[in-house]
Amino acid sequence: MVTGWVPGTGFFESFFVCTGLNYKTTGHILNDMSKSEAKKDLILDRGLQVMMSRGYNGTSVKDIVDAAGVPKGSFYNYFESKESFALDAIERVASENLKEMQRMLDSRIKSPKLRIEEFFKANIYSCCEKKFRIGCFLGNMSQEMSDNSEAIRRMLHVVMDRTTSLLTAALTQMQSDGDLSEAYDPEGLAEFLISAWQGAMMRMKTDSCQQPLDVFLAHLNLIFDAQHIRTAN
Amino acid sequence: MVTGWVPGTGFFESFFVCTGLNYKTTGHILNDMSKSEAKKDLILDRGLQVMMSRGYNGTSVKDIVDAAGVPKGSFYNYFESKESFALDAIERVASENLKEMQRMLDSRIKSPKLRIEEFFKANIYSCCEKKFRIGCFLGNMSQEMSDNSEAIRRMLHVVMDRTTSLLTAALTQMQSDGDLSEAYDPEGLAEFLISAWQGAMMRMKTDSCQQPLDVFLAHLNLIFDAQHIRTAN
Repeated sequence: MVTGWVPGTGFFESFFVCTGLNYKTTGHILNDMSKSEAKKDLILDRGLQVMMSRGYNGTSVKDIVDAAGVPKGSFYNYFESKESFALDAIERVASENLKEMQRMLDSRIKSPKLRIEEFFKANIYSCCEKKFRIGCFLGNMSQEMSDNSEAIRRMLHVVMDRTTSLLTAALTQMQSDGDLSEAYDPEGLAEFLISAWQGAMMRMKTDSCQQPLDVFLAHLNLIFDAQHIRTAN
Repeated sequence: MVTGWVPGTGFFESFFVCTGLNYKTTGHILNDMSKSEAKKDLILDRGLQVMMSRGYNGTSVKDIVDAAGVPKGSFYNYFESKESFALDAIERVASENLKEMQRMLDSRIKSPKLRIEEFFKANIYSCCEKKFRIGCFLGNMSQEMSDNSEAIRRMLHVVMDRTTSLLTAALTQMQSDGDLSEAYDPEGLAEFLISAWQGAMMRMKTDSCQQPLDVFLAHLNLIFDAQHIRTAN
C-alpha cells in the first residue's frame, strides 16, 4: 500500500503536486486560461486515442498533434515531453476508471457479491464494444513502460494500489456477510483478481475474442463459491 | 484450441511452413550455411535482449544491429523486416519456454499438484533473478502488438493455446487423482491460471517487487484446496 493516501480526496492531489494560479485572477486571465485548458484538453483527448491504440513507443508527438489538428509547437506549450503527456493521459484514464469503479462497488443497494460481478460484467461489455482491442490502457502502459520510465511506473503503482483498495473494501464486506470463505485475505484476493482480470484482457487481445473474459467471470464465481475444508498454509 | 496442432511435433512445424535447402548440399554450401545461420543467430540473440527490455516499438533495426555489432545491411540478409525479426524472436522464446514447461509438468516422479507448484516457483525465482524487470516477453508482445500486427497476434495465439494445453494436461491428471475440485473444467482453469500469472507478472513490473507473484502462488494453493459444496453455475 502507498502511505500518505487520503481517501476521499481528489485522485492525485495527495501524491502529485498540482500547480495553478494562486492569486486573484481577472476575467481576462480566466478566459485565456479556459481557452488554454480547452486546447490542452483537446490534445490530451485526441492524443490519448492514438496512444491507446498504438502504445507509448508506437505514438510520436507528431502523431498526437496530427490527431488533435494543431501545430507541433503547441504540444510543448502544454506538455514538457511525451512522458509528461503520458502521465497526464494515465491520470485522466485512472481518474475516470476509479470514479466508475467506486460508483459501482460502493452502492449499498445490492450485495457486494452482485456488485463485484456486475462491475466485471460491465467491463466485459465495454471490451466487446471495442471489439476486443486495446484492453486496459493502464495495463498496456504498465507492461510497456514500467521498465523504461520510473515516473510512469510510480504513477501506475499508485493507481493499481487504489484499484486494489476499492475491490478489497467490497470483498471485506462480502466476507462479513458470510459470502466469502474465511480462508481468503480480502486484500490478497483483490490483488489476485485484478491481476487475473488484467491477464484475461491481455489474452482477449491475443485471441481476439470474448472467451478469456468469460473464463475469468466463471472462475470469479468459483472462487466466491469455494469452501476451504483444509487449512490453507 | 487451434485445429491442426500435432502434439509431439516440433513447435511451429504444423503451423508455419519451414523453408530450407531440400537438395543435396556440398560441404562448401553447408559450411556457408552454418556461418550464415550463426550470424542470424547472433543478431536474433542480441536483438532479442534489446526487444525484451524496450519492447517492439522501443527497439529500432539500428538498435538490433548495434547490439549485434553488425552493419545495418546484414539485418536484411536474414530478416525481411522488424516484424519478421519479432516473429523469429517470439518463436525462439516460445520454443524454449514450452520445452521447459513440458519438462517440468510432464515428469512422472512427482504429483501433478507438486509439479505445477514447482513450475510457478521456478518462474518466480527467474523473475527475482531479473530484479522484477521484463516479466514475460510473450506477454509483453501480446499486450503491445496484438492490435498492431496480425501475424504477431496469430503466432502468440498459437503459443498461448499450447501453453494452456500443457497446463490442462497436468490439471486433468490432478483431477483424476482426486486433488482438484470437480467443479473446475481443467482447460478453463488452465486458461484462468495462465491469465492470472501473466497479470501477476505485469503487476510485479509496476510494483517492482515479488509480492504479486507470491499472491499468485498463495491463490493457486487456495484454488487447489477449494471444495465446492454449492453447484457451480
